[in-house]
Amino acid sequence: MSGGKLLETLSGTRSPTPPIWLMRQAGRYLPEYRAIRATTSSFLEFCYTPEKAVEVTLQPIRRFGFDAAIIFSDILVIPDALGQKVWFETGEGPKLEPLTDPAQFGKLSRGRLPEFLAPVYRAISEARKALPRETALLGFAGAPFTLACYMIEGSGSRDFAKVKQWAYSHPESFSVLIDLLVDAIVDHLVNQIEAGADAVQLFDSHAGVLPEEQVFSWSLEPMVRIAHGVRARHPKVPIIAFPRAVGPAALMYRRPDAFSALSLDTGLGAHWAAKELQPHICVQGNLDPIMLVAGGAALEREATRILDKLGHGPFIFNLGHGVVPQTPPEHVAQLVEIVRNWKPSTE
Amino acid sequence: MSGGKLLETLSGTRSPTPPIWLMRQAGRYLPEYRAIRATTSSFLEFCYTPEKAVEVTLQPIRRFGFDAAIIFSDILVIPDALGQKVWFETGEGPKLEPLTDPAQFGKLSRGRLPEFLAPVYRAISEARKALPRETALLGFAGAPFTLACYMIEGSGSRDFAKVKQWAYSHPESFSVLIDLLVDAIVDHLVNQIEAGADAVQLFDSHAGVLPEEQVFSWSLEPMVRIAHGVRARHPKVPIIAFPRAVGPAALMYRRPDAFSALSLDTGLGAHWAAKELQPHICVQGNLDPIMLVAGGAALEREATRILDKLGHGPFIFNLGHGVVPQTPPEHVAQLVEIVRNWKPSTE
Repeated sequence: MSGGKLLETLSGTRSPTPPIWLMRQAGRYLPEYRAIRATTSSFLEFCYTPEKAVEVTLQPIRRFGFDAAIIFSDILVIPDALGQKVWFETGEGPKLEPLTDPAQFGKLSRGRLPEFLAPVYRAISEARKALPRETALLGFAGAPFTLACYMIEGSGSRDFAKVKQWAYSHPESFSVLIDLLVDAIVDHLVNQIEAGADAVQLFDSHAGVLPEEQVFSWSLEPMVRIAHGVRARHPKVPIIAFPRAVGPAALMYRRPDAFSALSLDTGLGAHWAAKELQPHICVQGNLDPIMLVAGGAALEREATRILDKLGHGPFIFNLGHGVVPQTPPEHVAQLVEIVRNWKPSTE
Repeated sequence: MSGGKLLETLSGTRSPTPPIWLMRQAGRYLPEYRAIRATTSSFLEFCYTPEKAVEVTLQPIRRFGFDAAIIFSDILVIPDALGQKVWFETGEGPKLEPLTDPAQFGKLSRGRLPEFLAPVYRAISEARKALPRETALLGFAGAPFTLACYMIEGSGSRDFAKVKQWAYSHPESFSVLIDLLVDAIVDHLVNQIEAGADAVQLFDSHAGVLPEEQVFSWSLEPMVRIAHGVRARHPKVPIIAFPRAVGPAALMYRRPDAFSALSLDTGLGAHWAAKELQPHICVQGNLDPIMLVAGGAALEREATRILDKLGHGPFIFNLGHGVVPQTPPEHVAQLVEIVRNWKPSTE
């Protein structure tokens, strides 16, 4: 079996030190990423060019020897594949032609997804072949609520007023969109697994903007349905759920029937997580990406604090959010060394 | 004693229905606010004109009969009073000439604060005289970490990289700034109380961007020091703490020695808060402001859900964040009616 320490941890086997990978570990903080990214102007075209996606997926593995690679792609490939217009403007983030009426849902077609996203699956097959056996390869997708945020707001948002107003005032039609996304996401994750992904992560980056009852309806419940859909086809492939910034509502995601691990954002205290979450499920996280910018003694102290709190149970070291562009690569190397050299205290 | 139901609730007396006021209840969603706001171009000049500040403070009380008014002002009057350059650009939010070096702290002078902010205190005296006896008047201030965010970033921020990097890598010099702000905030709150404020609220709007250990050092600990400083002078004036988006770290703020109530953001589930926070301290919150945009059955259902969870203990009805400009005023009237007509279930 490929996938080494990460898959062992996800299946319940303990290692002396936890596996480590970082969200957005392939990205602008690496000069070798910027060099290859400069060869294609469109971000989505870059994602859909397998040799380039494979190359940037491998770059951080070569440099730092992480325990997992995550395929270089974007959560917005799903709305793109469904037929919504998606583009990226430099320095402004993603833009979509926003959905404003349920009548527009009819134009979104799941049928073309496998062919449209074939370059992603090809990149996964090739990355899996190129990676060391012991390095796990992760596939991923955005969760339905987060995708619906982009699809209805048409971009990032400060208050998510349009998508929330739709969900609150017209839950029936909002459900239609969420259900369509659940099916598309199951397809996309299954295809990634069949192409060679060893595990998958579901990013619900915007779940934290909802009150608890709505977190249940629009984040947790659809994510559980996706997990069950994927497990029906591939019962042994681990699924990591990342419901970002949901606070104490993270308690609802302790669902080993659906998820193999919960990824924690920076705001979810390691102390609280060790007590409330980890006895029920493997956790992943949650160093502040800005600690990785700071480096030095501050990084060493905070990474060690997290290791001391969470390293004694099932745990994958990661950040609480993605690596930021101004991160010095040598601080990433420092972090990997801290994690690999950490010694669990004798309990 | 002035202050009616709100002060009774804060001092532990129960009413059949909870008091209600809303963060940013004076603001752009009201046509009468927009009319008077249009008479002054500079936002800070508007805040420093007592007759205008008083008028907009009273507007939502006349319309909706809230149990509390909050003086119309801004958290950035403190950096402004300390001598940092602060201005507001239409549609862009606040801008400050950012602090980039501890050497600049020496230019910040607490001495001129009482005179500089005299218009705020005059507005409070006049608003208190104009308000019905049973309506509490709240003063407020931004908490040190949130003010430091603006003072170092120079504006709002996506990742708060500059302020966090400073706090993480140079905690000694960051402490100097936080300590200076603690003293200035105590002065400002004491002055507001002596001008006629019945209670005060401390807004730590950005506390949620910190990991738990840093939440303790830079949000909780300075807020407790401020509360103790104010209590030393005015032991009976209630202090409401609003550490926004801190998730389970809200547990640390159960400090009745310092705070009379905790204000909850929308993400902090009412169910969790009823179990973990309310047995220890009065809570305030936490309807999603977008529910107030939605109105109708969605608003009724969600407001009632919150009342059913929290209305049986010490509770002040509020939002989880400020009223947004696109809120229809009639939905605010609907909410006040829902809260006033709510019947506690017989337990």
